Amino acid sequence: MNKDEPYISKAVIARLPRYYRYLGDLIDDGIERISSKELSSRMKTTASQIRQDLNKFGGFGQQGYGYNVIYLYNEIGKILGIDKKNNIIIIGAGNIGQALAKYADFEKKGFIIKAMFDIDKDLFGKKIREIPVYRLDDMESYLMQNDIQIATLACPKDNVDEIVKKVVNCGVKAIWNFTHTDLKVPKNVMVENVHLSESLMQLSYKLSSSLAEDNL
Amino acid sequence: MNKDEPYISKAVIARLPRYYRYLGDLIDDGIERISSKELSSRMKTTASQIRQDLNKFGGFGQQGYGYNVIYLYNEIGKILGIDKKNNIIIIGAGNIGQALAKYADFEKKGFIIKAMFDIDKDLFGKKIREIPVYRLDDMESYLMQNDIQIATLACPKDNVDEIVKKVVNCGVKAIWNFTHTDLKVPKNVMVENVHLSESLMQLSYKLSSSLAEDNL
Repeated sequence: MNKDEPYISKAVIARLPRYYRYLGDLIDDGIERISSKELSSRMKTTASQIRQDLNKFGGFGQQGYGYNVIYLYNEIGKILGIDKKNNIIIIGAGNIGQALAKYADFEKKGFIIKAMFDIDKDLFGKKIREIPVYRLDDMESYLMQNDIQIATLACPKDNVDEIVKKVVNCGVKAIWNFTHTDLKVPKNVMVENVHLSESLMQLSYKLSSSLAEDNL
Repeated sequence: MNKDEPYISKAVIARLPRYYRYLGDLIDDGIERISSKELSSRMKTTASQIRQDLNKFGGFGQQGYGYNVIYLYNEIGKILGIDKKNNIIIIGAGNIGQALAKYADFEKKGFIIKAMFDIDKDLFGKKIREIPVYRLDDMESYLMQNDIQIATLACPKDNVDEIVKKVVNCGVKAIWNFTHTDLKVPKNVMVENVHLSESLMQLSYKLSSSLAEDNL
């Protein structure tokens, strides 16, 4: 990103993957051009929001002509940093770690899971969909010898501070965190949390407050 | 929720599960009282934010005396609707569905996974951690005969509209959605999305824009 580029709000960034998903679906449907109006109706948002959001990144559209779907898809991909490969390791080869490893869809978006690490010696040397499971003790030497962009934490939260320290010391700048804890990382290390229990609690809140409203 | 209660913003609701998690940790550590200042320092937020948030639900604290941890934990649990049991089904007994089923931690928060449904006949009659897998065709009759609050979608997105229709027709009012699509539901049905690919793309965006800044 260039210094001259405008500040992009969190809300816009959070919407970009959704644009990317819808544009991918349009490509699958063989649609080459789409107006902001038609795209907004599919996405249940407003045409003006779409124009505003995409203008932040230089527009991409032509008045009265709509967006070139493949071009816009690729440009958003570049903004999201998925035009290049992101190599990933998964720490913790338990249920969540294995489910992520088996999920081939990430690869289509350039996220390549290269290795998993665990402390369970029964898992050492096993492969989960071609992805090898190594000893957690070997993680640092692996990270020093391989080009890894993202570390996924799918381990119990007990030793997570120590693991994060090692990962960060080895130069990894992005952590995808499935543990139920807030990580302590330096400012230049990016974290994205997936707190499944908390997501379920938010759903439970919505449900219980909507049922209470029905009963008024 | 009572009509007289103040409007609770999405941001506050999103923070409640985090309060709940920190209070649970305090209970585990044997801490009975905590000031908003001490809690804010643990949570890396401000004491004033904590007081503001909790005041929305009637306060719970006493000036100069702090919060009673167990009381506050239980009260937030009630607000989140997890003081009562939420029965869950999982539609899709693939990798993500099975990982969720194996995750016993949900039960501690009153989320009980009762059954899974799939179209793969090799899975019918199997149990994933005591949770039976049934035929998707039998889902509606199961839902009519059992008290289920939440349907989890961990299936491919292909037939998801049809599945959602059935679930909603059977009276389920909350959907936890792991499919990569936006659901069409009536207004009184609550949805919480977990879009894993989109979370990974947001991380990739953060990483790529932070690296670009470093290179300026």
